[in-house]
Amino acid sequence: MSFVLDPRLEADTRPVCDLTLSTVRLMNDARFPWLILVPMQPNLVELTELDPDQRHLLTEEIDGVSRVLGSIMSADKMNVAALGNMVRQLHVHVIARHDGDHAWPGPVWGVGTVEPYDDRAADALIGTLRNHLTGA
Amino acid sequence: MSFVLDPRLEADTRPVCDLTLSTVRLMNDARFPWLILVPMQPNLVELTELDPDQRHLLTEEIDGVSRVLGSIMSADKMNVAALGNMVRQLHVHVIARHDGDHAWPGPVWGVGTVEPYDDRAADALIGTLRNHLTGA
Repeated sequence: MSFVLDPRLEADTRPVCDLTLSTVRLMNDARFPWLILVPMQPNLVELTELDPDQRHLLTEEIDGVSRVLGSIMSADKMNVAALGNMVRQLHVHVIARHDGDHAWPGPVWGVGTVEPYDDRAADALIGTLRNHLTGA
Repeated sequence: MSFVLDPRLEADTRPVCDLTLSTVRLMNDARFPWLILVPMQPNLVELTELDPDQRHLLTEEIDGVSRVLGSIMSADKMNVAALGNMVRQLHVHVIARHDGDHAWPGPVWGVGTVEPYDDRAADALIGTLRNHLTGA
Protein backbone atom coordinates (compact mmCIF):
# COMPACT_ATOMS: atom_id res chain seq x y z
CA MET A 1 0.00 0.00 0.00
CA SER A 2 1.31 3.43 -0.84
CA PHE A 3 1.08 6.81 0.87
CA VAL A 4 -1.85 9.02 -0.08
CA LEU A 5 -2.20 12.49 1.42
CA ASP A 6 -5.45 12.91 3.35
CA PRO A 7 -7.91 14.90 1.17
CA ARG A 8 -8.60 17.47 3.87
CA LEU A 9 -4.89 18.11 4.44
CA GLU A 10 -4.49 18.41 0.69
CA ALA A 11 -7.37 20.89 0.42
CA ASP A 12 -6.13 23.07 3.30
CA THR A 13 -2.51 23.34 2.17
CA ARG A 14 -0.16 24.01 -0.74
CA PRO A 15 2.84 21.79 -1.52
CA VAL A 16 6.31 23.03 -0.57
CA CYS A 17 8.75 20.13 -0.96
CA ASP A 18 9.45 16.53 -0.06
CA LEU A 19 12.12 15.69 2.50
CA THR A 20 13.38 12.14 3.10
CA LEU A 21 10.47 11.02 5.25
CA SER A 22 7.98 13.89 5.17
CA THR A 23 6.24 15.96 2.60
CA VAL A 24 6.10 19.60 3.64
CA ARG A 25 2.99 21.68 2.95
CA LEU A 26 2.06 25.30 3.63
CA MET A 27 -1.24 25.80 5.45
CA ASN A 28 -3.24 28.11 3.21
CA ASP A 29 -3.88 30.72 5.89
CA ALA A 30 -1.98 33.97 5.51
CA ARG A 31 -2.60 34.90 9.16
CA PHE A 32 -0.01 32.40 10.38
CA PRO A 33 3.26 31.16 8.81
CA TRP A 34 2.30 27.51 9.26
CA LEU A 35 3.79 24.36 7.77
CA ILE A 36 2.81 20.76 8.22
CA LEU A 37 5.07 17.74 7.83
CA VAL A 38 3.35 14.54 6.77
CA PRO A 39 5.46 11.37 6.91
CA MET A 40 5.02 9.65 3.54
CA GLN A 41 4.16 6.24 4.96
CA PRO A 42 0.71 4.66 4.69
CA ASN A 43 -1.68 4.33 7.61
CA LEU A 44 0.19 6.35 10.23
CA VAL A 45 -1.90 7.96 12.97
CA GLU A 46 0.25 8.25 16.11
CA LEU A 47 3.89 9.32 16.50
CA THR A 48 4.36 6.10 18.48
CA GLU A 49 3.69 4.08 15.31
CA LEU A 50 6.94 5.26 13.75
CA ASP A 51 9.88 2.90 14.09
CA PRO A 52 12.96 4.36 15.84
CA ASP A 53 14.72 5.31 12.59
CA GLN A 54 11.62 7.05 11.26
CA ARG A 55 11.11 8.76 14.61
CA HIS A 56 14.61 10.18 14.60
CA LEU A 57 14.34 11.22 10.98
CA LEU A 58 11.07 13.02 11.67
CA THR A 59 12.67 14.73 14.66
CA GLU A 60 15.49 15.99 12.44
CA GLU A 61 13.04 17.14 9.76
CA ILE A 62 10.95 19.00 12.35
CA ASP A 63 14.13 20.60 13.64
CA GLY A 64 15.21 21.71 10.17
CA VAL A 65 11.80 23.04 9.17
CA SER A 66 11.40 24.85 12.47
CA ARG A 67 14.79 26.54 12.14
CA VAL A 68 14.08 27.68 8.58
CA LEU A 69 10.53 28.92 9.18
CA GLY A 70 11.46 30.58 12.46
CA SER A 71 14.40 32.36 10.86
CA ILE A 72 12.58 33.48 7.69
CA MET A 73 9.62 34.78 9.67
CA SER A 74 11.56 36.19 12.64
CA ALA A 75 9.26 34.21 14.92
CA ASP A 76 8.81 35.16 18.55
CA LYS A 77 7.98 31.53 19.34
CA MET A 78 7.71 28.31 17.41
CA ASN A 79 4.75 25.99 18.03
CA VAL A 80 5.24 22.32 17.17
CA ALA A 81 2.36 19.88 17.55
CA ALA A 82 0.95 16.54 16.47
CA LEU A 83 -2.75 16.57 17.32
CA GLY A 84 -4.81 14.70 14.71
CA ASN A 85 -8.17 14.85 16.46
CA MET A 86 -9.89 15.94 13.25
CA VAL A 87 -7.64 14.55 10.52
CA ARG A 88 -6.22 11.27 11.76
CA GLN A 89 -3.40 10.93 9.23
CA LEU A 90 -0.20 11.68 11.16
CA HIS A 91 0.92 15.23 10.53
CA VAL A 92 3.06 17.64 12.52
CA HIS A 93 2.32 21.34 12.68
CA VAL A 94 5.25 23.79 12.73
CA ILE A 95 3.97 27.31 13.20
CA ALA A 96 5.85 30.60 13.51
CA ARG A 97 4.09 32.67 16.13
CA HIS A 98 4.33 36.39 16.75
CA ASP A 99 3.38 38.35 19.82
CA GLY A 100 0.08 39.96 18.79
CA ASP A 101 -0.83 37.57 15.97
CA HIS A 102 -4.49 36.63 15.44
CA ALA A 103 -4.45 33.92 18.11
CA TRP A 104 -1.66 35.07 20.44
CA PRO A 105 -0.98 33.77 23.05
CA GLY A 106 -3.48 30.97 22.48
CA PRO A 107 -3.07 28.12 20.01
CA VAL A 108 -3.98 28.73 16.36
CA TRP A 109 -6.34 25.83 15.75
CA GLY A 110 -9.96 26.77 15.22
CA VAL A 111 -9.39 30.49 15.76
CA GLY A 112 -11.38 32.94 13.60
CA THR A 113 -11.65 32.61 9.86
CA VAL A 114 -9.00 31.32 7.50
CA GLU A 115 -7.51 33.98 5.21
CA PRO A 116 -6.18 32.18 2.13
CA TYR A 117 -3.00 33.50 0.52
CA ASP A 118 -3.22 35.16 -2.84
CA ASP A 119 -1.27 33.07 -5.34
CA ARG A 120 1.58 35.50 -5.67
CA ALA A 121 2.25 35.71 -1.92
CA ALA A 122 2.00 31.95 -1.56
CA ASP A 123 4.34 31.31 -4.48
CA ALA A 124 6.91 33.75 -3.10
CA LEU A 125 6.88 32.21 0.37
CA ILE A 126 6.93 28.66 -0.97
CA GLY A 127 9.86 29.52 -3.23
CA THR A 128 11.84 30.90 -0.32
CA LEU A 129 11.00 27.91 1.88
CA ARG A 130 11.90 25.45 -0.84
CA ASN A 131 15.27 27.12 -1.39
CA HIS A 132 16.12 26.89 2.28
CA LEU A 133 14.77 23.37 2.85
CA THR A 134 16.17 21.66 -0.21
CA GLY A 135 19.08 23.89 -1.11
CA ALA A 136 17.55 23.98 -4.62
CA MET B 1 23.53 27.67 36.18
CA SER B 2 21.13 24.95 37.20
CA PHE B 3 17.66 24.00 36.07
CA VAL B 4 14.73 25.55 37.93
CA LEU B 5 11.16 24.61 37.03
CA ASP B 6 9.09 27.61 35.95
CA PRO B 7 6.85 28.65 38.86
CA ARG B 8 3.69 28.56 36.75
CA LEU B 9 4.43 25.04 35.49
CA GLU B 10 5.15 24.04 39.08
CA ALA B 11 1.86 25.52 40.31
CA ASP B 12 -0.23 23.90 37.57
CA THR B 13 1.19 20.38 37.91
CA ARG B 14 2.14 17.59 40.31
CA PRO B 15 5.47 15.75 40.09
CA VAL B 16 5.50 12.25 38.60
CA CYS B 17 9.13 11.25 38.04
CA ASP B 18 12.44 12.27 36.52
CA LEU B 19 13.67 10.59 33.35
CA THR B 20 17.20 11.05 32.00
CA LEU B 21 16.60 14.44 30.38
CA SER B 22 13.09 15.44 31.41
CA THR B 23 11.11 15.76 34.56
CA VAL B 24 7.56 14.48 34.08
CA ARG B 25 4.65 16.28 35.73
CA LEU B 26 0.90 15.67 35.78
CA MET B 27 -1.23 18.66 34.81
CA ASN B 28 -3.59 19.17 37.73
CA ASP B 29 -6.76 18.99 35.64
CA ALA B 30 -8.84 15.86 36.07
CA ARG B 31 -10.71 16.53 32.79
CA PHE B 32 -7.74 15.45 30.70
CA PRO B 33 -5.00 12.84 31.33
CA TRP B 34 -2.22 15.30 30.61
CA LEU B 35 1.50 15.12 31.28
CA ILE B 36 4.26 17.58 30.56
CA LEU B 37 7.91 16.77 30.00
CA VAL B 38 10.34 19.52 30.96
CA PRO B 39 13.97 19.00 29.91
CA MET B 40 16.06 19.65 33.02
CA GLN B 41 18.47 22.07 31.38
CA PRO B 42 18.60 25.77 32.16
CA ASN B 43 17.33 28.48 29.82
CA LEU B 44 15.68 26.31 27.15
CA VAL B 45 12.84 27.87 25.18
CA GLU B 46 12.73 26.26 21.73
CA LEU B 47 13.10 22.62 20.71
CA THR B 48 15.75 23.83 18.25
CA GLU B 49 17.97 24.86 21.18
CA LEU B 50 18.53 21.22 22.15
CA ASP B 51 21.72 19.63 20.85
CA PRO B 52 21.24 16.51 18.70
CA ASP B 53 21.77 14.07 21.59
CA GLN B 54 19.29 15.91 23.78
CA ARG B 55 16.84 16.12 20.89
CA HIS B 56 16.95 12.37 20.35
CA LEU B 57 16.69 11.69 24.06
CA LEU B 58 13.66 13.94 24.34
CA THR B 59 12.09 12.20 21.34
CA GLU B 60 12.55 8.83 23.07
CA GLU B 61 11.15 10.17 26.32
CA ILE B 62 8.10 11.62 24.55
CA ASP B 63 7.63 8.26 22.83
CA GLY B 64 7.80 6.34 26.10
CA VAL B 65 5.51 8.69 28.00
CA SER B 66 3.02 8.75 25.15
CA ARG B 67 2.90 4.94 24.98
CA VAL B 68 2.37 4.60 28.73
CA LEU B 69 -0.24 7.33 29.09
CA GLY B 70 -2.09 6.24 25.95
CA SER B 71 -2.18 2.65 27.11
CA ILE B 72 -3.21 3.34 30.72
CA MET B 73 -5.96 5.73 29.64
CA SER B 74 -7.11 3.80 26.53
CA ALA B 75 -6.73 7.00 24.56
CA ASP B 76 -8.54 7.51 21.28
CA LYS B 77 -5.79 9.92 20.18
CA MET B 78 -2.59 11.28 21.66
CA ASN B 79 -1.81 14.97 21.38
CA VAL B 80 1.85 15.98 21.59
CA ALA B 81 2.83 19.64 21.51
CA ALA B 82 5.50 22.16 22.38
CA LEU B 83 3.84 25.59 22.37
CA GLY B 84 5.28 27.85 25.09
CA ASN B 85 3.46 31.03 24.15
CA MET B 86 2.50 31.66 27.77
CA VAL B 87 5.22 29.86 29.72
CA ARG B 88 8.44 30.15 27.77
CA GLN B 89 10.41 27.42 29.56
CA LEU B 90 10.56 24.52 27.09
CA HIS B 91 7.94 21.92 27.95
CA VAL B 92 6.20 19.26 25.90
CA HIS B 93 2.56 18.38 26.42
CA VAL B 94 1.53 14.72 26.08
CA ILE B 95 -2.24 14.43 26.38
CA ALA B 96 -4.51 11.40 26.14
CA ARG B 97 -7.64 12.47 24.29
CA HIS B 98 -11.00 10.75 24.15
CA ASP B 99 -13.79 11.21 21.67
CA GLY B 100 -16.30 13.32 23.60
CA ASP B 101 -13.90 14.76 26.20
CA HIS B 102 -14.38 18.36 27.39
CA ALA B 103 -12.53 19.84 24.41
CA TRP B 104 -12.94 17.17 21.72
CA PRO B 105 -12.10 17.48 18.86
CA GLY B 106 -10.45 20.83 19.56
CA PRO B 107 -7.20 21.33 21.46
CA VAL B 108 -7.30 21.38 25.28
CA TRP B 109 -5.50 24.64 25.96
CA GLY B 110 -7.64 27.41 27.39
CA VAL B 111 -10.86 25.39 27.27
CA GLY B 112 -13.36 25.83 30.13
CA THR B 113 -12.35 25.68 33.76
CA VAL B 114 -9.65 23.53 35.28
CA GLU B 115 -10.95 20.76 37.55
CA PRO B 116 -8.15 19.91 39.98
CA TYR B 117 -7.74 16.29 41.03
CA ASP B 118 -8.57 15.30 44.57
CA ASP B 119 -5.39 14.11 46.26
CA ARG B 120 -6.39 10.46 46.29
CA ALA B 121 -7.13 10.29 42.56
CA ALA B 122 -3.95 12.18 41.73
CA ASP B 123 -1.82 9.95 43.96
CA ALA B 124 -3.28 6.80 42.40
CA LEU B 125 -2.69 7.98 38.86
CA ILE B 126 0.80 9.25 39.64
CA GLY B 127 1.67 5.94 41.31
CA THR B 128 0.57 4.00 38.25
CA LEU B 129 2.44 6.32 35.89
CA ARG B 130 5.59 6.18 37.99
CA ASN B 131 5.54 2.38 38.03
CA HIS B 132 5.27 2.24 34.25
CA LEU B 133 7.75 5.01 33.51
CA THR B 134 10.52 4.07 35.92
CA GLY B 135 9.86 0.39 36.47
CA ALA B 136 9.94 1.22 40.20
